[in-house]
Amino acid sequence: MAKEYDRRNLDFILKEVLDFGSLCSHPYFADYTPDMFDMVLDSAESIAERYLRPHFVDTDRHPAELIDGTVHVHPSTEAYVKEMGESGMIGSTFSYEKGGQQLPSTVGGAHEFIRGAASNSIVMFTGLTNGAAHLIASFGSEALKAEYVPNMLNGRWTGTMCLTEPQAGSSLNDVSTQAKDLGNGTYAIKGQKIFISGGDNQFSENIIHLVLARLEGAPKGTKGISLFVVSKRRKENGTWVSNEVTSLGLYHKMGQKGTPALHLSFGDKGDSIGYLVGEPNKGLSYMFQMMNEARLGVGMGGAYIASAAYHFSKQYANERSQGRKLSNKDPETPPTLIKNHPDVQRMLYFQKAIVEGAMGLLFQSFMWEDYSKCLTGEEAENYHTLLNLMTPVAKTYPAEMGLQAVNQGVQVLGGYGYTEDFPLEQMARDVRIMSIYEGTTGIHGLTLLGREIPANQGKALKLLVNLIQKDIEEAKKQTTIQAYAEELEKEVAKLGQVTMHKLKIAAEGKPELFLADSTLYMELFGLIVVAWQWLKQGTVASKALAESPSVLDKEFYQDKLHTMKFFYHYEVPKALGLNKRLMDTENLTVFES
Amino acid sequence: MAKEYDRRNLDFILKEVLDFGSLCSHPYFADYTPDMFDMVLDSAESIAERYLRPHFVDTDRHPAELIDGTVHVHPSTEAYVKEMGESGMIGSTFSYEKGGQQLPSTVGGAHEFIRGAASNSIVMFTGLTNGAAHLIASFGSEALKAEYVPNMLNGRWTGTMCLTEPQAGSSLNDVSTQAKDLGNGTYAIKGQKIFISGGDNQFSENIIHLVLARLEGAPKGTKGISLFVVSKRRKENGTWVSNEVTSLGLYHKMGQKGTPALHLSFGDKGDSIGYLVGEPNKGLSYMFQMMNEARLGVGMGGAYIASAAYHFSKQYANERSQGRKLSNKDPETPPTLIKNHPDVQRMLYFQKAIVEGAMGLLFQSFMWEDYSKCLTGEEAENYHTLLNLMTPVAKTYPAEMGLQAVNQGVQVLGGYGYTEDFPLEQMARDVRIMSIYEGTTGIHGLTLLGREIPANQGKALKLLVNLIQKDIEEAKKQTTIQAYAEELEKEVAKLGQVTMHKLKIAAEGKPELFLADSTLYMELFGLIVVAWQWLKQGTVASKALAESPSVLDKEFYQDKLHTMKFFYHYEVPKALGLNKRLMDTENLTVFES
Repeated sequence: MAKEYDRRNLDFILKEVLDFGSLCSHPYFADYTPDMFDMVLDSAESIAERYLRPHFVDTDRHPAELIDGTVHVHPSTEAYVKEMGESGMIGSTFSYEKGGQQLPSTVGGAHEFIRGAASNSIVMFTGLTNGAAHLIASFGSEALKAEYVPNMLNGRWTGTMCLTEPQAGSSLNDVSTQAKDLGNGTYAIKGQKIFISGGDNQFSENIIHLVLARLEGAPKGTKGISLFVVSKRRKENGTWVSNEVTSLGLYHKMGQKGTPALHLSFGDKGDSIGYLVGEPNKGLSYMFQMMNEARLGVGMGGAYIASAAYHFSKQYANERSQGRKLSNKDPETPPTLIKNHPDVQRMLYFQKAIVEGAMGLLFQSFMWEDYSKCLTGEEAENYHTLLNLMTPVAKTYPAEMGLQAVNQGVQVLGGYGYTEDFPLEQMARDVRIMSIYEGTTGIHGLTLLGREIPANQGKALKLLVNLIQKDIEEAKKQTTIQAYAEELEKEVAKLGQVTMHKLKIAAEGKPELFLADSTLYMELFGLIVVAWQWLKQGTVASKALAESPSVLDKEFYQDKLHTMKFFYHYEVPKALGLNKRLMDTENLTVFES
Repeated sequence: MAKEYDRRNLDFILKEVLDFGSLCSHPYFADYTPDMFDMVLDSAESIAERYLRPHFVDTDRHPAELIDGTVHVHPSTEAYVKEMGESGMIGSTFSYEKGGQQLPSTVGGAHEFIRGAASNSIVMFTGLTNGAAHLIASFGSEALKAEYVPNMLNGRWTGTMCLTEPQAGSSLNDVSTQAKDLGNGTYAIKGQKIFISGGDNQFSENIIHLVLARLEGAPKGTKGISLFVVSKRRKENGTWVSNEVTSLGLYHKMGQKGTPALHLSFGDKGDSIGYLVGEPNKGLSYMFQMMNEARLGVGMGGAYIASAAYHFSKQYANERSQGRKLSNKDPETPPTLIKNHPDVQRMLYFQKAIVEGAMGLLFQSFMWEDYSKCLTGEEAENYHTLLNLMTPVAKTYPAEMGLQAVNQGVQVLGGYGYTEDFPLEQMARDVRIMSIYEGTTGIHGLTLLGREIPANQGKALKLLVNLIQKDIEEAKKQTTIQAYAEELEKEVAKLGQVTMHKLKIAAEGKPELFLADSTLYMELFGLIVVAWQWLKQGTVASKALAESPSVLDKEFYQDKLHTMKFFYHYEVPKALGLNKRLMDTENLTVFES
């Protein structure tokens, strides 16, 4: 199979565009040198090579099964999780204090990108374990931390997040799992959770569920939700016994079949014991820490599956001969490679533009996360604000556009793309979940326009526009891309107008109308910030070309510039239609009832 | 499961918009009355109810298998094909002369729509048999007709079309299957064909393959392709013997698993006998008759799967409670139905706008086919010209937009949409093939802009614009929709400008640049003609509302008008971006090589 990503491109984004090596100059990351970051990425390639890529197709053909109450996942999963634990990569980005290696999230994210591109479902086991352990490490008591975190980070135990319930879906207001205080620091947990990824497996010694539930008498709504650690097995008198976490059923999914999604029951007979994490009724705020990390992870899923689909379909187009060039009517000549058909080029550049633009956005977000850790005071706070603004976008753009990109990858292969003989159809099924996981696209549209944009008198957007404007000024100095900088400037101004238009409706006290097209606002927002990322990449490529690069580098930078132009000529025009609809006041979706 | 389509809407399009009953006034269809058309549609519902809907999911869970050289398809297929044969519906639209019932294609298409919405893969068996039989009936000798057509139309034998070869894909220039003249009116056929839908099954007494092959010494390219009838079994001395058509393998597909796609070998040991259809070297022109019929069938596939997904997700939204209205922050109130969330409404109206707009376009095309049969002279010819122009569009728009619509249907169900517990994920896998079957979207873009538009000094487009203009004038008389008529007028003018711009590039002798963005031209063209169909539907609804309709009808017409507005406010703005790109001369996909 084609290599699923391009290390040269990843290095370009991390080093030349974002300068992630500069993080090492901050005390928080002072134990690292840029060379060490390279070694971390090399190790990800080694893990992908040994534990993931060889089993990618097989995890789909032999999905997880529920046998006699235990879920059996693909046998390769165990060795992968063990290797990740032993190499210290499950919690590598945790602070030393929390038991991690204090690695920048940007580097941890790149490690994840490389693994996920090779096999996107199995990697969820370590991603979820990371998230669950991070919750305990951040908010748990010293006793909970000592009990759980080390064994989760070393890969012996895995973790999950248990939010969704049958009757509640996306609405966490309606979580109804009960937690009864048993008076001795333990709680009896009772309720059902659905779609629990990694909810059981045959190999982990224990599985640590982070469960949202309500204490007796807690307020209704999200203000009455607490967070509990509920493990599959609990220790009693020194031995491990069942904690009555039961796998009621396994969802049969369209894709991502390597990751079991479970319907779990807790304490049906009253024998499921949990421990409160942090304070009562603050569970949702804790959970949102994990959710936000997980959201960037889902955005990565869209990007790395699309990356794999792009590189595979590009290789196919470079090897498959079919038809003749449009300018050649002579059937006596041999067929040409399909990459020579303009429409195939269009489909390949579309994929490249989406994948590498989305990567720019995601690693930009990870850099902000790192800045918020290694800087202090207002500066750190501003990066945190930017990260909060961008998280729903960096989740949604790669998920939605990744789906479209993979779809074009299938199309490059024609009929073969629809068959199991090639991995494209699996990728198309796998990527479809990303716009549903961790909050659907609709939910994130509401989060962006309804919460992040209006917060603090629009501070986040102002910070973002300032950053973009600086990059526009920088780009204007490069004559080759000046016109694109000016175009982005206009588009950012229009986004500002659309935003003001929507906020005016909010100010009129019409929340339904304000948010009715928030999914389209999200689409526009994603398009503009990825156009910004492309301008940044184009600026770097343009400068590099001016400095007599090597032949190989010259080709790379020219292709970067070409792809930036493709994004501006083929993708940015879509803003015209989105702006028109978003400024339009015709109400067609909000009804009185 | 939710009814997969709305008969009231189908009747609206067929009767109120297109007036298909008026066909009965032409001598060619004089044996029919409008009431009889209703009975035909009722019979389709009965077939769907008895033979298709109950097995829709099961055909996916138990796909066709190749066992000991024979393909075993879902057991329900046999009874369905038999019923279709016995009720005379396999070749119902053939002329009496060709053994059919001379039913309008519009009615036959509606029958197919109802069946396909209930179960989209099994219906291909009769669709392909229809196409193969039509080729023989149209171009075969009297002996061939007598031998094959009756048993195909009565459902005892099924048919296929064998075009694609491993090395050729979409490029029919490179078809290399050989046909050796044996001198006695028979030919020895030797070669391999891939992706042959319905290529084998366990129940048909015989399978009749219509095979493209080259006679010895035939010219290279498409001008040297002949058409042969090659049956699975042939008669020798009164008994049926094998004709050496071998199933080499069965493709494992992402969806449409009820229809086996085969890799077939003909005459590997020299014992496959075929019969020439029509004249030597004219095979491709014959095959295109079948292809064009099949193309409308594939467009129908996009539309009827999207219809099923729409109606199912709408029902789900009407039954599933989750969250509260955006204007209600009180968690004490019970959850609301998800249809009350504006973003869910947007997803539902998007689906409805695509499905019913695509249906308008498809049945408009079928009406033109019928006019080309029942009218004469220049009038008939003009409708034939219009049909040729629209066929690639009526194939591509429903295929591409149907995929997007089904995707939104999945999204309405959230996580459940991704699981096998609901039929949406199957529909999403099934519909994906439609933009590949019978010529990919890219191929149809080339056909539209490269062939149909420039033919006869642009006559087809002129005819179409005249028709559209008449409907615009009619719509302008309705004050409620006047503004939309004016908007369409502007968009049609812009489409004309884009077309002239592209033809100018063609006139400059630059075929590659001319056609580089033909897929986007197709996207724009489809958008505008569906906007036209919506204006027609809106005009009828608007007139009907002025005439004091019943309560139920009033609701129906208001929702029609609403959906028309949705199309103009949410879909038509996409033309802005497409126009911009199509007028843009920056070349990013054509490279010298």
